[in-house]
Amino acid sequence: MSNSFHPPVRTLMGPGPSDVNPRILEALSRPTIGHLDPEFIRLMDEIKALLQYAFKTKNELTLPISAPGSAGMEAVFVNLLERGDKAIICSNGAFGGRMQENVERAGCTAVMVNDEWGQAVNLEKVETALKQHTDAKLLAFVHAETSTGVGNDAKALAALGQQYDCLVVVDAVTSLGGIPLEVDAWGIDAIYSGSQKCLSCIPGLSPVSFSPKAVEVIKSRKTKVQSWFLDMNLVMGYWGQSTKRSYHHTAPINPLYALHEALLCLQEEGLVSAWERHNLHHRAFVSGLEAMGLSILVDQASRLPQLNAVRVPDGVDEALLRRTLLNQYDLEIGAGLGALAGKIWRVGLMGFASSQKNVLHCLSAFESALVAQNLPISTGRAINAALKVYS
Amino acid sequence: MSNSFHPPVRTLMGPGPSDVNPRILEALSRPTIGHLDPEFIRLMDEIKALLQYAFKTKNELTLPISAPGSAGMEAVFVNLLERGDKAIICSNGAFGGRMQENVERAGCTAVMVNDEWGQAVNLEKVETALKQHTDAKLLAFVHAETSTGVGNDAKALAALGQQYDCLVVVDAVTSLGGIPLEVDAWGIDAIYSGSQKCLSCIPGLSPVSFSPKAVEVIKSRKTKVQSWFLDMNLVMGYWGQSTKRSYHHTAPINPLYALHEALLCLQEEGLVSAWERHNLHHRAFVSGLEAMGLSILVDQASRLPQLNAVRVPDGVDEALLRRTLLNQYDLEIGAGLGALAGKIWRVGLMGFASSQKNVLHCLSAFESALVAQNLPISTGRAINAALKVYS
Repeated sequence: MSNSFHPPVRTLMGPGPSDVNPRILEALSRPTIGHLDPEFIRLMDEIKALLQYAFKTKNELTLPISAPGSAGMEAVFVNLLERGDKAIICSNGAFGGRMQENVERAGCTAVMVNDEWGQAVNLEKVETALKQHTDAKLLAFVHAETSTGVGNDAKALAALGQQYDCLVVVDAVTSLGGIPLEVDAWGIDAIYSGSQKCLSCIPGLSPVSFSPKAVEVIKSRKTKVQSWFLDMNLVMGYWGQSTKRSYHHTAPINPLYALHEALLCLQEEGLVSAWERHNLHHRAFVSGLEAMGLSILVDQASRLPQLNAVRVPDGVDEALLRRTLLNQYDLEIGAGLGALAGKIWRVGLMGFASSQKNVLHCLSAFESALVAQNLPISTGRAINAALKVYS
Repeated sequence: MSNSFHPPVRTLMGPGPSDVNPRILEALSRPTIGHLDPEFIRLMDEIKALLQYAFKTKNELTLPISAPGSAGMEAVFVNLLERGDKAIICSNGAFGGRMQENVERAGCTAVMVNDEWGQAVNLEKVETALKQHTDAKLLAFVHAETSTGVGNDAKALAALGQQYDCLVVVDAVTSLGGIPLEVDAWGIDAIYSGSQKCLSCIPGLSPVSFSPKAVEVIKSRKTKVQSWFLDMNLVMGYWGQSTKRSYHHTAPINPLYALHEALLCLQEEGLVSAWERHNLHHRAFVSGLEAMGLSILVDQASRLPQLNAVRVPDGVDEALLRRTLLNQYDLEIGAGLGALAGKIWRVGLMGFASSQKNVLHCLSAFESALVAQNLPISTGRAINAALKVYS
């Protein structure tokens, strides 16, 4: 017979989930109520308003999909596209490739604009594709590539999409709450995120937002959305005005308590302060790494503060280092994916995990794990370098 | 600025979610760990084994989909069907209609076998359809119709499906853990359930199970599954053998702690005891109702113990009664849907909510709310009748 599962207490500095604020875990465990309860409907309204704040949007259709970020991605593509449509997809990491899968499974054509993993999306190549494919319905790109630590220039890409009359679709799974993002000001038409990155909530929910233009596209479709569960025509009825809500599915009540609390934390801190905090701890962390002789894969201009791709030095066993961190320090960091497997570690400084305590803990752990692998580094310099940034 | 959300403490006796055992809420709030953590992978293995116990199956492909029951339903249909396929769907309530939506959105034909809401699926009509449509790929039906309180004869329906060489698909959202269900012995090929009914976990997860025959169908598809998120070829890689798991999405860590705990509770009690408990409290509840002069919509032979469709007596304002129960007793029950709106209340006795305390609480509340609406009932008789069943 199995026993109750008592997880180890880890420090989560991988590509997500990130450390969850205890306040959010406490909210999660409050008593379950029904999804048609007037009190729950009030909560839904508050969550919508808090998400509008986080996304910097007035979009009415702003809500969390009752499933992880990958379902949010799928919701955006299957609602905006109909069979035979064409979409331009920027790909410079794992998640651009996933977008392509979604477009093709909806019976549509994906025109790929590929850039190297670790490089930012090239604006000129995107403009060339837009000029060449004037029949494209949408332009999609990843704001913060979790697989490489690259931040793409969402503002400029969105402007390009608008200029060529495409719907602008943004993957903000790892960007929301961590770096500047302005849905309305930048002209984004559809965006999806995840709960478990810079919002520091538990995984399993995907905040989305659709502009009035995108809503018009969804409402005037000629064919039904291929997914019943993700059909925004039905989902917006469920999350719509309190007075005339219609049953669709059963919302995940307790995770929504947690998301509400996570969004409250963000609002209390303030978006700009949260962005600055992510930036500060990133700078301290990188200073420490560099003092240890390590380096970051991504050019300074495109680096994400919340996801640091650290090059694995020659002669170091990257998997062994991760195991040492996990087993001796209860510290989780991520491995490289695809072409970058074995070449980088991915260190997240997301949401609640973006803190001085975590930066110093991680630097110490790295230092001692590298020394254990006989890498000739002078100990103590990393912490000093990081502390200098804080002082 | 919004404040933290502190839900009222309700008694959940609607069509779901049901009362959640505090032990499960406590498990839910344990520290989040990464979805690639060796400890989490161990948890996934335990959940799979516990679900096999609950479903009475040896099916290797048995796991929880990271989304609510409606996504579980969609996962089953989009994986088993390819465009142009034909499916026979039994419909005697809201969820048969939802199956039809799923089949049609997958580009397939749904042959509907309709029965009245409140009646069980007619086996002869199903056999006629099976004889007529020898090209049908699957037969699908709802085991426990949450919209009407009717239990369909899953064992007999599954046997019919097998006899005519159809894959047998079962909606067990409200049946799993509440009434006898034997996936292997009855020859069920694909089944989905929900976490928030007789398992008494929070809403948001959908346990599913596929027979080896169904897995073979999925693996030998000619076309890709239209949903990337629900593609079982990818999901089974993620939930597969610990030694070679491949990343798909990020599992909802904490809700899976809760599901694990809920399944442990079920295993500790024992499946047969759980079924007997649901039956006992149902009988006590119905005795009490009848002593009050109320009656159940569904024939005794097809009644679900976990979902009681109570007829609204003439002259009673059904919505007012529900409001009274909610506001004065913190007690949630459900309304009728579709053709039964205004004609029935739906009273759930599911999982942790299937208890003597809840039965007596609900009977008292009903009695006093009906007296308040001037229904001439003799008070006190309901409780006595219920207690007689317990004695």
